[in-house]
Amino acid sequence: MSRHRTDDVPERGDRSKRHIDGPLGIVAGRGPLPCLLAEAATARGLPVHIVGIRGEASDEIERFSHTWMKWGELGKLFGALDDHGCRDLVIVGGVNRPDLANVKFDFTAVKHLPFLLSLGKGGDDNILSRIVDFFEQKGYRVHGPEEVLPDLLVGVGILGDKAPSGEDRADIELGFRVVASLGHLDIGQAAVIAKGHVLAVEAAEGTDAMLARIVELRQSGRVSLPGRAGVLVKAPKPGQEQRIDLPTIGSETVRRAAAAGLAGIAVAAGQVLVAELARTIDAANRQGLFLVGEPVPQETKSSAP
Amino acid sequence: MSRHRTDDVPERGDRSKRHIDGPLGIVAGRGPLPCLLAEAATARGLPVHIVGIRGEASDEIERFSHTWMKWGELGKLFGALDDHGCRDLVIVGGVNRPDLANVKFDFTAVKHLPFLLSLGKGGDDNILSRIVDFFEQKGYRVHGPEEVLPDLLVGVGILGDKAPSGEDRADIELGFRVVASLGHLDIGQAAVIAKGHVLAVEAAEGTDAMLARIVELRQSGRVSLPGRAGVLVKAPKPGQEQRIDLPTIGSETVRRAAAAGLAGIAVAAGQVLVAELARTIDAANRQGLFLVGEPVPQETKSSAP
Repeated sequence: MSRHRTDDVPERGDRSKRHIDGPLGIVAGRGPLPCLLAEAATARGLPVHIVGIRGEASDEIERFSHTWMKWGELGKLFGALDDHGCRDLVIVGGVNRPDLANVKFDFTAVKHLPFLLSLGKGGDDNILSRIVDFFEQKGYRVHGPEEVLPDLLVGVGILGDKAPSGEDRADIELGFRVVASLGHLDIGQAAVIAKGHVLAVEAAEGTDAMLARIVELRQSGRVSLPGRAGVLVKAPKPGQEQRIDLPTIGSETVRRAAAAGLAGIAVAAGQVLVAELARTIDAANRQGLFLVGEPVPQETKSSAP
Repeated sequence: MSRHRTDDVPERGDRSKRHIDGPLGIVAGRGPLPCLLAEAATARGLPVHIVGIRGEASDEIERFSHTWMKWGELGKLFGALDDHGCRDLVIVGGVNRPDLANVKFDFTAVKHLPFLLSLGKGGDDNILSRIVDFFEQKGYRVHGPEEVLPDLLVGVGILGDKAPSGEDRADIELGFRVVASLGHLDIGQAAVIAKGHVLAVEAAEGTDAMLARIVELRQSGRVSLPGRAGVLVKAPKPGQEQRIDLPTIGSETVRRAAAAGLAGIAVAAGQVLVAELARTIDAANRQGLFLVGEPVPQETKSSAP
């Protein structure tokens, strides 16, 4: 009984969607999205080839036509995409920043060394934009995952059975202000707010580690909250390169938010991906958490103070 | 061989310093500052009485005239201060937010219940200002710890043997922007930056826990940095009530920053307390970390976006 609507999701910036008709290349980091996208593309009759980053992508990608690559094997990456005729690309799933001192560069990578070394510096968003530009300059078309699987974007409204209280609403509002303020400085995409108090802000550690911190804060008595309280808020950074690394939630996020004693989860509708929507809503209902997509205006970087 | 200067420390807002001539009351939370202040006051010939918050203050306070109180024992607090003639107060040292459901309120506390319950909501800064106002309305004069012990404030300049590199300077600059931006939302007082990348932002967990997170991020490979890299930046929030809860560093902070593999520590000069300056500089020199006081303008809340 979801009140999930997709019709009034905010528009995704000024990037017009480009039709994908050839084979789809998927450059895969962590998580279930690479395989979900491969399934969706296959169902639409598109051939797919997944290039999995060793140590990041799940072994599940071996269910599909695939190639494994290590950091620094740029020639192998281009070779695999070209061998399978992939000009359309999706780059999806989390990765750790590699330690360039331990990377072995193949010849193609060596030719692009100044570009690769430049990725060692600066905030995430800056790096992601440069990666997209790099592939586009090579003649690939880089697509957002929701162009392959539109259901991936969270819609506006209350997604599960439970609705946020008035107090939760105030925390949600503060949470979106925190995430927007941080985003201007290219910091994380999430925060946890409880009763008007910012308990945690995400930076390099990721949402899972941030939620684990809430468990510790409550157990140690450093934060005392009666029963279920607090909200996890997720939204992209203003001006974020949305074709790769959109914020993502899933049933595991719900499980961790419940373990942290939170009352619910609020995300920016149309700007956050949900892996396996039905399962995620199910998890929220079972755990008694609310799950809402908020119609947050999509901020651009130029509005930074 | 410290290049520590105190002559050009920025002015501390518009609050004129008030002479303390009677007995000094010290309301004590965690850390070494309550006893350091008691020693300094005693050396100046001021009688002192420490009221230690049970579960927070160190047993060391028993070296001085003292009273132990639990949360909710407001009558005991006022009684102890009045019995020892203390109209001048310093409130110092970290505390956990108590779970009001588990607090036993004495009669004086019950009379002030609406005030006490109001402290359960909102950000730290809001709460601290209300606590100061509360004591001032009762006729106490609340002083900042540096009014008793001026050496507690970090001065401008390079405090130890080591100086930040050009790259560290860029990280320091970004760090102060992050902390200022967060402060407008009444979030923490610290962040860790490395090579232009914001690794961690402090909220309710405190600086020690944030530094422990950097250790984990590096050990797990989620963040890869060669050798010593990154800066811990600390500054008060804009418009922060500076009489209680100024950010504090000490030799333990240096030890934890070194364990996190950081290159150094930068704090807002004149706005951050250092417990045991000589020991802290010593620790930085031994660990090979730089320690600098930066002349950061003291922002006011009205400049919030």
